[in-house]
Amino acid sequence: MRIMGIDPGIAIVGYGVIDRRGNRLTPIDYGSIQTEAGLPTGTRLKQIYDGATTLLRRYKPDVVAIEKLFFNRNVTTAFTVGQARGVMMLAAEEAGAPITEYTPLQVKMAVVGYGQAQKRQIQEMVRMLLGLSDIPKPDDVADALGVAICQAHSTTFTDRVGGGRRRK
Amino acid sequence: MRIMGIDPGIAIVGYGVIDRRGNRLTPIDYGSIQTEAGLPTGTRLKQIYDGATTLLRRYKPDVVAIEKLFFNRNVTTAFTVGQARGVMMLAAEEAGAPITEYTPLQVKMAVVGYGQAQKRQIQEMVRMLLGLSDIPKPDDVADALGVAICQAHSTTFTDRVGGGRRRK
Repeated sequence: MRIMGIDPGIAIVGYGVIDRRGNRLTPIDYGSIQTEAGLPTGTRLKQIYDGATTLLRRYKPDVVAIEKLFFNRNVTTAFTVGQARGVMMLAAEEAGAPITEYTPLQVKMAVVGYGQAQKRQIQEMVRMLLGLSDIPKPDDVADALGVAICQAHSTTFTDRVGGGRRRK
Repeated sequence: MRIMGIDPGIAIVGYGVIDRRGNRLTPIDYGSIQTEAGLPTGTRLKQIYDGATTLLRRYKPDVVAIEKLFFNRNVTTAFTVGQARGVMMLAAEEAGAPITEYTPLQVKMAVVGYGQAQKRQIQEMVRMLLGLSDIPKPDDVADALGVAICQAHSTTFTDRVGGGRRRK
């Protein structure tokens, strides 16, 4: 099963593609789509959408897992991130990939097994679980890989209990 | 000049298309794109995007004016509205239409000339300015027409001072 994890934003969208076979996770590709601050929002959203569409066609993930709202962020941030997230979800929908959503708490629990984990601890676990020599940069990329790992663990559990794939 | 006004939301996107010749405003079409609450968010966003693309192709507006964030709304609402707004802006960008944004205060000032105006007063002025027999329903449609009128007045002003069309 191939999983694409996404950490959405208007300036940087982190992505991470991993393959899961049994309990084994293999990193396929990871990186970011970046847009320039000076450009009109519509142009930046189209760059994100086009970049996401290219990645989805290249890697054909079986599921796209997206990080859910940080409830402690402010309204303007939520609004801006929401716009970027909207075009990412549209791209996934058009690619026919089921979309799942995970909160930062769910990602922490899945990756580190501890809800109070610090960012650095999560990043280090992401690095170890995927057998990478360094922590991917910027943070958004490591976060996207964390979301993908969260989905991989969730799917393992779902397989075990025989349930269907989650789609919200 | 043809203007499309948009009041974005995940359940209802209001739209209003008007033509402006000098000081004369003519309503061309208005209505809403509605999505079902039970559907996955990705599906709803695709319905909004497809509906918007169809409208943009049909009416070929010279400018698309979108209502800006209600700063007093909560984070979850801002996030949800942001997602719908993102795909609307993407559709406008792909249609090659410049996008402008107006706050509810700017719309009130442009339509009623009074920033403390009540919703009902704005709706009644929208009805009068466009020569409609009834106030369009639901509220999102009247709001979208209000945004379009705001853009029409702003353009009148821009024409007068000889400035270019605004694009943020």
